[in-house]
Amino acid sequence: MARVNEYYADLQNNFLFAEVARRVAVHQARHPQLEYLRLGIGDVTSPLVPAVTQALHRAVDEMGQANTFKGYGPEQGYSFLREAIVQHDFAQRGVTMDNEAIFISDGSKCDVGNLQELFSPDAVIAVTDPVYPVYVDSNIMAGRGGNRGHILYLPCTQENNFVPELPSGKVDVIYLCYPNNPTGTVLSRAQLAVWVEYALACEAVIIFDAAYEAYINDPNIPHSIYEIDGAEKVAIECRSFSKTAGFTGLRCAYTVIPKTVRAKNVQGETVSLQGMWQRRQCTRYNGCPYIVQRAAEAVYSPEAQTQLAAVLQGYMRNARAIRQAVLEMGLHCVGGVNAPYVWMQTPEHLSSWECFDVLLDAGIVCTPGAGFGPSGEGYVRFTAFGSAAHSQQAMERLKVLENFA
Amino acid sequence: MARVNEYYADLQNNFLFAEVARRVAVHQARHPQLEYLRLGIGDVTSPLVPAVTQALHRAVDEMGQANTFKGYGPEQGYSFLREAIVQHDFAQRGVTMDNEAIFISDGSKCDVGNLQELFSPDAVIAVTDPVYPVYVDSNIMAGRGGNRGHILYLPCTQENNFVPELPSGKVDVIYLCYPNNPTGTVLSRAQLAVWVEYALACEAVIIFDAAYEAYINDPNIPHSIYEIDGAEKVAIECRSFSKTAGFTGLRCAYTVIPKTVRAKNVQGETVSLQGMWQRRQCTRYNGCPYIVQRAAEAVYSPEAQTQLAAVLQGYMRNARAIRQAVLEMGLHCVGGVNAPYVWMQTPEHLSSWECFDVLLDAGIVCTPGAGFGPSGEGYVRFTAFGSAAHSQQAMERLKVLENFA
Repeated sequence: MARVNEYYADLQNNFLFAEVARRVAVHQARHPQLEYLRLGIGDVTSPLVPAVTQALHRAVDEMGQANTFKGYGPEQGYSFLREAIVQHDFAQRGVTMDNEAIFISDGSKCDVGNLQELFSPDAVIAVTDPVYPVYVDSNIMAGRGGNRGHILYLPCTQENNFVPELPSGKVDVIYLCYPNNPTGTVLSRAQLAVWVEYALACEAVIIFDAAYEAYINDPNIPHSIYEIDGAEKVAIECRSFSKTAGFTGLRCAYTVIPKTVRAKNVQGETVSLQGMWQRRQCTRYNGCPYIVQRAAEAVYSPEAQTQLAAVLQGYMRNARAIRQAVLEMGLHCVGGVNAPYVWMQTPEHLSSWECFDVLLDAGIVCTPGAGFGPSGEGYVRFTAFGSAAHSQQAMERLKVLENFA
Repeated sequence: MARVNEYYADLQNNFLFAEVARRVAVHQARHPQLEYLRLGIGDVTSPLVPAVTQALHRAVDEMGQANTFKGYGPEQGYSFLREAIVQHDFAQRGVTMDNEAIFISDGSKCDVGNLQELFSPDAVIAVTDPVYPVYVDSNIMAGRGGNRGHILYLPCTQENNFVPELPSGKVDVIYLCYPNNPTGTVLSRAQLAVWVEYALACEAVIIFDAAYEAYINDPNIPHSIYEIDGAEKVAIECRSFSKTAGFTGLRCAYTVIPKTVRAKNVQGETVSLQGMWQRRQCTRYNGCPYIVQRAAEAVYSPEAQTQLAAVLQGYMRNARAIRQAVLEMGLHCVGGVNAPYVWMQTPEHLSSWECFDVLLDAGIVCTPGAGFGPSGEGYVRFTAFGSAAHSQQAMERLKVLENFA
């Protein structure tokens, strides 16, 4: 009989957000009258802005006419979008980036899950802890989990002010996500530079997930790792339109691999990861839909930028309100200033999942911190992506925790 | 320094269709006046039908309104589409299929490339030869290529009438694509039943790629492997809207994994591949865009079915015309009857790539058979997806081969 990939047995039974959804469904069945306020999964709620839907309508019309119809597009994405990205996300921040380094995809979840395929099965990877589960789970599926010791956790706790320390042993690949999911914390330019220097010295590769860069308010926080000198030699960056432009249901993201990012083969020769990723995407991916790429291009128009600024400011007002409510209750939290997540320490004696249950009874869905890794125990994550009214109402309900304080 | 996935070194330098595109670009630079007739890559040319673009416009409007906006959807696809698929693609053919078995994706290329991840790295896979390169390349990337002997070719040649023989040794996973890409040949119900019986007896898993089922004219040819008794225990099926509804640039497909398809783990217990795929997709995929799933749903409307029938009949008129032209020249070919591909034997003494070059000089782009595997040498593939006028004109130009006959 065919044998399965054994490494799946090293995974937890359910993907974190699937498990949260399952528990909410079970709870709802028992409390059919309860209206839940969903601050769990980091999903946007504001509709697409008019400049984007207009671009979609135009592109759909093109797809319905023989002379403008588009079949298979380039696997790495259309030039019009790659050029818009280079111009707006990099050149305007003083970063020189080549079109060839940009790979359009249908989501950062896919890209960050797939990037590990470029590396040797015995590569040692480092992840911050707590961490977005996809980095870890995709590496477990590839055989780097279990007792094989190929996954190194870098704790981010109150003790180190949620700034991970450099690994003590040798690592090959480092996943960094800033602004951070789930903690909502950030790294300053100087703090990120420490990691770039480390990677240059140790010849490691950094996979930098910048999905939340649009939420940065502080001018000292870098939006891209390529704002740090030398990063173009060691860093892959994942960017997304999901949180920047409300594309969670439309699906568009991109990954940047400068051709100077290299790793070595068994012969000891260095190999361009850009070339390998190009080969992977051409072979196993067929490009993001044309109409979605036109929508992403429209995100950079002045009209869309104005419309989106209003949406993002609304989410960040929610974040500040959530943060404020938590602090006023005398509970500790970080995040919510340069990121749409608030990372709250649970009241004493409540584990992550216990706190999740208490809040669920009060009609609030959060994400239990323990689901993001060992250092997430004792925390829960709130997202700021709801409406202002819902966020305010949730913070009223949050007072149920005063019984535990 | 980080080490790369060594197995990429076992791949050919370029993905086949990328190599064809590269050679055409080089040729075009030297012959800027030449207008090429593209019968190479299997890409549709007719625009989306009105019933589909109307559904897209409606869904875009939903995405622009707060009360109908959709963020993250279910990773396995929306129920409305899974139910439409079960009803139209299975129930109407007398096949009982559970919604839970249907996984919507953004393309069969991704699905057939990813499915190998469910199996042990040392699984032995069998592919027909010639073959769609993704089956082989994705397995090479996972370490089953090179000299490790985990990839078994099943030759399909004139000698066996392009019907592969059962493997002599033990295999774990068998890729079958019918109607076949690249040869355009089909398996009758009885011929496919032989494979299902073999898989049942040997406890192997069949990955059945039915991307071209909509082109079947003969009522004796099965559209789905689940029309064969017992297939629900051994077969995974990949289906696509690309060739059925002109979605190559819109991106929607689905994979069927009945819960009865199982493989074993190291403890010898059997494991449901449906559950593993569910875990994989939840972890590493974020769902096909909502608007695209609404477009796919619309494909099953009576209006779309009428509109699409006209498009597909046009492609099949091209296929018959190409087949006819090849036969009239005294050259041998198969396909073009129940599939949009014609597989032509090159004139004596011309290799696949030589024939490609001769045709390119005449302004015809084909795909050299050797790119599909060893048994493809001495053949080229023509696609029928162009306009009637282009296909006719290409067959005029084909007469350049008379010089070699």
